[in-house]
Amino acid sequence: MKLNIAVLSGDGIGPEIVDQALKVVRAISKKFGHEVSTEEGLVGATAIDKVGDPYPESTHEICMEADAVLFGAIGDPKFDNDPTAKVRPEQGLLRMRKQLGLYANLRPVTTFPSLLHKSPLRKELVEGADFLCLRELTGGIYFGDKGRTEDNQGAFDHCVYTREEIARILHLAYKFALQRDKRVTVVDKANVLETSRLWREEAQKIEKEYPEVETDYMFVDNAAMQIIQWPKKFDVMVTENMFGDILTDEASVITGSLGLLPSASVGTHTSVFEPIHGSYPQAAGKDIANPVATILSAAMMFETAFELKEEGALIRKAVLASMDAGVVTEDIDKEKACKTSEVGDWIANYVLE
Amino acid sequence: MKLNIAVLSGDGIGPEIVDQALKVVRAISKKFGHEVSTEEGLVGATAIDKVGDPYPESTHEICMEADAVLFGAIGDPKFDNDPTAKVRPEQGLLRMRKQLGLYANLRPVTTFPSLLHKSPLRKELVEGADFLCLRELTGGIYFGDKGRTEDNQGAFDHCVYTREEIARILHLAYKFALQRDKRVTVVDKANVLETSRLWREEAQKIEKEYPEVETDYMFVDNAAMQIIQWPKKFDVMVTENMFGDILTDEASVITGSLGLLPSASVGTHTSVFEPIHGSYPQAAGKDIANPVATILSAAMMFETAFELKEEGALIRKAVLASMDAGVVTEDIDKEKACKTSEVGDWIANYVLE
Ligand SMILES: CC(C)[C@H](C(=O)O)[C@@H](O)C(=O)O
Ligand SMILES: CC(C)[C@H](C(=O)O)[C@@H](O)C(=O)O
Repeated sequence: MKLNIAVLSGDGIGPEIVDQALKVVRAISKKFGHEVSTEEGLVGATAIDKVGDPYPESTHEICMEADAVLFGAIGDPKFDNDPTAKVRPEQGLLRMRKQLGLYANLRPVTTFPSLLHKSPLRKELVEGADFLCLRELTGGIYFGDKGRTEDNQGAFDHCVYTREEIARILHLAYKFALQRDKRVTVVDKANVLETSRLWREEAQKIEKEYPEVETDYMFVDNAAMQIIQWPKKFDVMVTENMFGDILTDEASVITGSLGLLPSASVGTHTSVFEPIHGSYPQAAGKDIANPVATILSAAMMFETAFELKEEGALIRKAVLASMDAGVVTEDIDKEKACKTSEVGDWIANYVLE
Repeated sequence: MKLNIAVLSGDGIGPEIVDQALKVVRAISKKFGHEVSTEEGLVGATAIDKVGDPYPESTHEICMEADAVLFGAIGDPKFDNDPTAKVRPEQGLLRMRKQLGLYANLRPVTTFPSLLHKSPLRKELVEGADFLCLRELTGGIYFGDKGRTEDNQGAFDHCVYTREEIARILHLAYKFALQRDKRVTVVDKANVLETSRLWREEAQKIEKEYPEVETDYMFVDNAAMQIIQWPKKFDVMVTENMFGDILTDEASVITGSLGLLPSASVGTHTSVFEPIHGSYPQAAGKDIANPVATILSAAMMFETAFELKEEGALIRKAVLASMDAGVVTEDIDKEKACKTSEVGDWIANYVLE
């Protein structure tokens, strides 16, 4: 198979972690006889510095022509203390989501036995937790009209959803549930919001099309509690954009393995695969960052974008083997810390053998 | 002092827990020479059943004439599976908030040594956590325009804030911070929302008026993580209505003492004091529910509405003493469980002696 991958490394540690993932992508492709071609695009603060735009048209074109996008991380401290800066890395991210139609952000929440002690939760509560969060990514209050009143004494943000947007991601949630434990939790605030009542109406229709799947409905405030209290009870959770922003971050932190978790954003034009951690600028260029989340994102790319399950599974296996072998970066083991590139090499070699 | 208290017991266990709090209110008033007069009002499902309105005008009048409102809980399972029911208990709650101008919901997050083992967090992370959440309660997406598009293919909810609404609660947050550890965390989503940028602008102005207080700014997704990771780092957290709904519930669950936490809603006309737990219909009428959250809400009433700190402090002391003495309901100790009324009697007696 021919795999056309757009590579958007971004800022901070982005380039070095993406390099490791590409090593693994090349290794697995060699092993399974796929032909990889990559095309690099600028994104984030790097792109602002070079061409004045965090998601330039040239990058968009590269993404549109690719079968999948491998993404590093964006963000630079120089923008952090200036929320009013005219051009900001996040704008590029939001524009990319909209232009590529990335309507569903997928975040698997899983634990790693060797990292459970880093979880803020008591071990018995979180051990074995394994669920998938789907966050709607191109609608809601993120993309509605926003602005100030004429006298600048007030501001507004409009949250808008259509049945079509809601149905699209709900169907995806049910499809994933069918491959998992067949349970979907729809999270909304239907006791207050009209958009949530529309979500619930659609969900109540669509659940009938998937009789094998059990559906339950949960208010967002309740979900925020239950993620901490009983993380093992969830299988597939699906929600709108703003709630998803909050709940997926909350969910990722309970595992103790924030730095290791991958994500996928499924789009109408192409899909984007990226670690959920940030650009970690303090570590940039030092060959110390953990590349595992990006390598696992590449595994999701094989599974989700290319539908090559075996390849994805082998990458996952290699990652677990590297952790068992103690080939880990300093965030996991300060004493016998390996370099970013050593971890990448080890996993790529494992895959080849 | 003359204390005029409106009593809204509501549904489920509401009446029995409010009764205990009233015992304590009467005891402390006797001790300190205050004169208590109470007036009861219907609210919630009970009010729907009796007069077809979850917050009838007669109840509103009682509240408007009172110095403070002691509130039980509302909610009845018969409404739970019917999010489209025309009249719902929650509507009464939202109407009460708006009509009484309850602009700031205060939720102290504290731990009780004897309940730490119930916290989902590891003990060393949460032990000693002590912060105050302020949630804006009468603005934002809860109260903006909402509706459907003409073809009923879409829905919208408008989030709106004015500088005045924002400034009012921020000043309150700083006032509380001055009495505490002098740190305020303003939570918003200023990298995406215009209303959040307005919050941040106001906060950046107002923080200058309180030079003794340290201010930091945090995005809501980050706050959802840090509440779990480092709950001890917060002192006063302040945020808008929808974010506050999610974060205050998340914060209350980390303590292990959800059933014991009180709240206050400060208003322009009067203030409302209520436990954060629900109406627990399965326990209604059984004399088994824990009255402590309602009794602690009464303590907040003395401190916040009547500015009677000593009285509030003595109620708190009595509550801790009851726990030390093992005078607790079955949720805390199944074996030697006391009745709701026994706990109320014990605390009222302690206060009197
Ligand atoms: C940077 C920000 C705009 C973004 C979001 O809120 O979507 C981020 O928090 C995320 O979750 O990817
Ligand atoms: C019942 C509901 C409308 C309410 C809210 O969202 O404000 C509740 O969750 C709360 O936090 O008091």
